[in-house]
Amino acid sequence: MTRGTGGPTLAVVGATGAVGAVMLDLLSTRRNVYGEIRLVASPRSAGRTLTVRGEPVEVAALAPEVFDGVDIAMFGVPEAVSAEWAPVVTSRGAVVVDNSGAFRMVPDVPLVVPEVNPERVRRRPRGIVASPSCATLSMIVVLGALHRRYGLRELVVSSYQAASGAGQDGIDTLYEQMEKVGGDRALGNRAGDLRGAVGEFGPFPAPLALNVVPWAGEVRDGGWSSAELKIRDESRKVLGLPELRVTATCVRVPVVTAHSLSVHAVFKERVEQREAQAVLAASPGVVLCDNPAFQEFPTPADVVGTDPVWVGRVRRSLDDPKALDLFLCGDNLRNGAALNTAQVAELLAAELTA
Amino acid sequence: MTRGTGGPTLAVVGATGAVGAVMLDLLSTRRNVYGEIRLVASPRSAGRTLTVRGEPVEVAALAPEVFDGVDIAMFGVPEAVSAEWAPVVTSRGAVVVDNSGAFRMVPDVPLVVPEVNPERVRRRPRGIVASPSCATLSMIVVLGALHRRYGLRELVVSSYQAASGAGQDGIDTLYEQMEKVGGDRALGNRAGDLRGAVGEFGPFPAPLALNVVPWAGEVRDGGWSSAELKIRDESRKVLGLPELRVTATCVRVPVVTAHSLSVHAVFKERVEQREAQAVLAASPGVVLCDNPAFQEFPTPADVVGTDPVWVGRVRRSLDDPKALDLFLCGDNLRNGAALNTAQVAELLAAELTA
Ligand SMILES: NC(=O)c1ccc[n+]([C@@H]2O[C@H](COP(=O)([O-])OP(=O)(O)OC[C@H]3O[C@@H](n4cnc5c(N)ncnc54)[C@H](OP(=O)(O)O)[C@@H]3O)[C@@H](O)[C@H]2O)c1
Ligand SMILES: NC(=O)c1ccc[n+]([C@@H]2O[C@H](COP(=O)([O-])OP(=O)(O)OC[C@H]3O[C@@H](n4cnc5c(N)ncnc54)[C@H](OP(=O)(O)O)[C@@H]3O)[C@@H](O)[C@H]2O)c1
Repeated sequence: MTRGTGGPTLAVVGATGAVGAVMLDLLSTRRNVYGEIRLVASPRSAGRTLTVRGEPVEVAALAPEVFDGVDIAMFGVPEAVSAEWAPVVTSRGAVVVDNSGAFRMVPDVPLVVPEVNPERVRRRPRGIVASPSCATLSMIVVLGALHRRYGLRELVVSSYQAASGAGQDGIDTLYEQMEKVGGDRALGNRAGDLRGAVGEFGPFPAPLALNVVPWAGEVRDGGWSSAELKIRDESRKVLGLPELRVTATCVRVPVVTAHSLSVHAVFKERVEQREAQAVLAASPGVVLCDNPAFQEFPTPADVVGTDPVWVGRVRRSLDDPKALDLFLCGDNLRNGAALNTAQVAELLAAELTA
Repeated sequence: MTRGTGGPTLAVVGATGAVGAVMLDLLSTRRNVYGEIRLVASPRSAGRTLTVRGEPVEVAALAPEVFDGVDIAMFGVPEAVSAEWAPVVTSRGAVVVDNSGAFRMVPDVPLVVPEVNPERVRRRPRGIVASPSCATLSMIVVLGALHRRYGLRELVVSSYQAASGAGQDGIDTLYEQMEKVGGDRALGNRAGDLRGAVGEFGPFPAPLALNVVPWAGEVRDGGWSSAELKIRDESRKVLGLPELRVTATCVRVPVVTAHSLSVHAVFKERVEQREAQAVLAASPGVVLCDNPAFQEFPTPADVVGTDPVWVGRVRRSLDDPKALDLFLCGDNLRNGAALNTAQVAELLAAELTA
């Protein structure tokens, strides 16, 4: 338990996870708007001490009493835990900002990205505000800015998703595979060799080191993955475009943290490359990094650990003057999860203290 | 120098390279249709002995006399070397099958993929037949089959290209970076750390281990890369569809060998998932690997070293009944280079011995 300003009391649920670690980092580095901050995780972690705002705080096991007097709870826990516990926490009077997929598509739960639809945070009949999935978040601020200028009609997205999108287990698995594979020149040349060499696959359905895996999430009708449908459903909801045409193919790559997306976006109006670049450069939360002649384009290695989404390779399609192609990268734990949650919680904190 | 059947005399130019090594492997394992086989490379490699068809053959330095009596020459050398030497070799009476970008878009040089447009090999006024670039080759057999059924109108492609697409230098660079990075948990978490840790970037403009790099080739107008324009130009030429709408974004991934592509293809006619899968399963040179419920989809690790292109994740787009989304992998040195060259050379050999 730690005390800051006289602001609202905050609980961080899932403080020990991959997203939770970044939440604590953000709480320690952003403007301090909270009074007390409580850290919560599973009974496995109860009693551990973590640092937030420079002070040690003991982790409490998830239980109803932990939320007495809590105003805002940021959730970074598995979907099933959110589904069960968010109603418990709201019934005690706190507003929940949830990072999981449990509530994103529930009609009376707003799905909020402060750079795109901040006004939605105020209508929250259930006391729950949802944050989009990491892949959607990494592109939605860029698309929101372009949509305001050109009117979005269609998206074709291919992802390059990092291991940490599968949580701490994904991170550990990739490092362990990298350790086993190293610079071994016998690997990467014969079909199937990596299957024997990388050790455990962890949360991934195939080796990830020295490989790419065209799958994320669960199987849905028509051969789609749940991760692909999330990109479609969530983009439509955040942008307020229920008819938006969206196709996504989600692929996992051997990167620890930072998702990348290749985006083909078709608009109502004719686009111009320079103007689109200027729109993006002027957008809060976006960094334009786009000068291939000087080897300037975003890569995960240059983006990990930073707040904004980085966008580059902005081109007007050669066969369609109303379409843009671009490539973007965002830290999935930060830009794609903890930062958005923190920004939504700050909107709530401002409302509560107003 | 080695003697086989009484068939035509073959020269392999660039026998010591990444593509050349696979050419020799294919010559040693496919039906033996050649008489003598001569191996050629730069003066640096002259005198080295390589094995083909189980026999040692000494490498000759590239020189006009080497081609006396040669009927067919397979070229796997840099573009500038092809541009200079293909005319020298044809003037001595041999037909050149070239793997480089030097002649692909020259109007009176056919660009041939035996599964798609074998008839084109016969009209070769310059005595040169070109083979497409690896990224185009990995998708063109799949697209050719679907085009015959549904009529292709538009392509949106994002690539996941292997290090060996940049030749032996690319392979060496990735292994060296993997050696340096290994399972080091300090890497992959902070912006820029990999730049210091991976050592030389080799032919890549940024670290490749634990990263993805949205660039391949040289800078062209409008922010396009030459690799992206090749996919557009070559697809149009091989399919005989000069107006085909094509957009590509080329991205390098830390995979040694086997390119992957995420393809959104729009057709003239309505598509059906099962039927499209059946069309692909019945296509020579294509393996359908598409059952996500059983974790069946192609990955580079399962495809490297094999001849066909592997296709999976075949879905009908949710918002367009005339569009398919799919993911495919092909060994870029084999499926995407040496195999096509070998198949074209075999068409020529059959013609010469007919
Ligand atoms: N990773 C991403 O890129 C990303 C992006 C956007 C959204 N999300 C979502 O954010 C949530 C957390 O993801 P993550 O990647 O941080 O996962 P993670 O690394 O596996 O962390 C899970 C957290 O939830 C806690 N937890 C698990 N079971 C619990 C229980 N029964 N009761 C209380 N706490 C429990 C864990 O506590 P212990 O340490 O005590 O087990 C840990 O703090 C998920 O819903 C995920 O879908 C993740
Ligand atoms: N890698 C791919 O995925 C791929 C796919 C499709 C097409 N291609 C094309 O295939 C060609 C070869 O690519 P690669 O990846 O095999 O490159 P590589 O590994 O660098 O090999 C280059 C080959 O060319 C020879 N060579 C270089 N300069 C020469 C010269 N001045 N005279 C004679 N021989 C010379 C080299 O001989 P030494 O060993 O003696 O230097 C070596 O055998 C390139 O045009 C490339 O664009 C490559």
